[in-house]
Amino acid sequence: VQLVALAGGTGAAKLLRGLSRLVAPRDLTIVVNTGDDTELWGLHISPDLDTVCYTLAGVIDATRGWGLADETFQALGQMARFGEPSWFSLGDRDLATHLHRTRLLREGRTLSDATAAIGAALGVKSRILPMSDQPVRTRVLGPDGWLDFQEYFVREKAQVEVRDVAYDGSSAANAAPGVLEAIAGARAVIVCPSNPVTSIGPILAVPGIVDSLTRSAATIIAVSPIVSGNAVSGPAGRLMASRRLPVSAAGVGRLYAPWLDVLILDERDRQEIPEVLQLGVSPVTAQTIMATREDEIALARRVLEVLA
Amino acid sequence: VQLVALAGGTGAAKLLRGLSRLVAPRDLTIVVNTGDDTELWGLHISPDLDTVCYTLAGVIDATRGWGLADETFQALGQMARFGEPSWFSLGDRDLATHLHRTRLLREGRTLSDATAAIGAALGVKSRILPMSDQPVRTRVLGPDGWLDFQEYFVREKAQVEVRDVAYDGSSAANAAPGVLEAIAGARAVIVCPSNPVTSIGPILAVPGIVDSLTRSAATIIAVSPIVSGNAVSGPAGRLMASRRLPVSAAGVGRLYAPWLDVLILDERDRQEIPEVLQLGVSPVTAQTIMATREDEIALARRVLEVLA
Repeated sequence: VQLVALAGGTGAAKLLRGLSRLVAPRDLTIVVNTGDDTELWGLHISPDLDTVCYTLAGVIDATRGWGLADETFQALGQMARFGEPSWFSLGDRDLATHLHRTRLLREGRTLSDATAAIGAALGVKSRILPMSDQPVRTRVLGPDGWLDFQEYFVREKAQVEVRDVAYDGSSAANAAPGVLEAIAGARAVIVCPSNPVTSIGPILAVPGIVDSLTRSAATIIAVSPIVSGNAVSGPAGRLMASRRLPVSAAGVGRLYAPWLDVLILDERDRQEIPEVLQLGVSPVTAQTIMATREDEIALARRVLEVLA
Repeated sequence: VQLVALAGGTGAAKLLRGLSRLVAPRDLTIVVNTGDDTELWGLHISPDLDTVCYTLAGVIDATRGWGLADETFQALGQMARFGEPSWFSLGDRDLATHLHRTRLLREGRTLSDATAAIGAALGVKSRILPMSDQPVRTRVLGPDGWLDFQEYFVREKAQVEVRDVAYDGSSAANAAPGVLEAIAGARAVIVCPSNPVTSIGPILAVPGIVDSLTRSAATIIAVSPIVSGNAVSGPAGRLMASRRLPVSAAGVGRLYAPWLDVLILDERDRQEIPEVLQLGVSPVTAQTIMATREDEIALARRVLEVLA
């Protein structure tokens, strides 16, 4: 293994799709956030694992950015009739992933096993690892109490004020098999442009991972998900603000500074370069907005150039 | 409760749909076979409960005779990709029923509870009871060993030679709450035209049910599923032969004779009337093939006439 990526959902998946065009897929190990996993209809849902896997398999729905292409939602409509929650849209084909994973877990297999089985079935050649086989659940404190991440993100559409974020279960969790070894042996670790609080944060909360990043001889390079003081997508900005972090590329750099070597920030944020340098992190600028497949490959190429 | 029906799948559901046009749905309690229940993809499937419920709710697929109308099979195709069994066709909308039932069962609710919830959600006004809340599983001994009923019926298309039939778990099972009481208090018990070996047989194998039929003051009336020496549908003929029963309406009568009052046999089987009389059962002829909704209502009317 030469490259290890720490990944959340959509933004990470785009960069990884770009990388997979430039490096041998087998040289890429992806450690994925499971803090936003949830249980719905008795099924174990792993949104970030699925987004990464579906994207690399070429079966993601390009318009929605989640779930499978050519999807239908027949079961969902019927579940609503049974009074089951219907605010989380599970497609009919997508359901098969959750059914298969849930069956494997109920038979005593680990989330790592289930993830490997799903990746293999969909033809993904890169190694996708959950950050942990134990449950870690990101929770968000809103004005009316704690919410599961998906309740906050999907049901409430991230519109409630956030007062705190917790990673329940993280202190009792272990990194999944292979995660610490992959980081320790990597030539480079790429922290994908994912939400620092709710995508990368849960990964860093798993005991051993920060230590492993700190000790690793790998070059550690992060791509900022914040451009011009705003998240490229999602509620990363508001979540960073809730943790009293500056909502800027440099704010991301500050969070990762203890173990980060290089921060790739968007060209339009070059005024933040001095601030990044002060953190002891090397700033590199790039066009970080990935609107097209070409953008993804160009950003991935920039990452590889920095490592070369 | 005035009428209690013992029911399997399709044939029973047609007669019950006819009855539900003639009597108040709330005056009808239906005790349904669960011997052909199965576990698939981690879900609890109850084919006969669903066929009865979907039929009475008016949502059954009329062409296939099972599952929901306007169905798609997207999840099924994807499950095959994951190497999950795909010989049992679960539709996308149908999946919601199994997901909902399985979730309720995992939360500690009984199959009776789940059945009531599903019936209520689909607007069924008659009371549908599983024969038992404990698992009873019909198994079939083929040339290569024992098969689950659905393996025999669906996967092998009922084409293997049957050497024996067993109702695993029946001796430890109890009739579901309300079943024995409904039979004891009924004005009439209708044994639907279902497979005597694998639809009605499992119900009769539940301790207490035969005794309750024997003691009940109700008029007990069965409709033969065998016409002209053949099953109207399915493998009932071969299964009866495997148990060394004559494959005839009178053969059905013989099986039920200890507690049966009236046997409705098809008009074309009137030559069997003397044989039925010898069993101490009153024979009544009718047009028993239900090809249309009018046939269903006509047969139901004949049943009610006999009871009047």
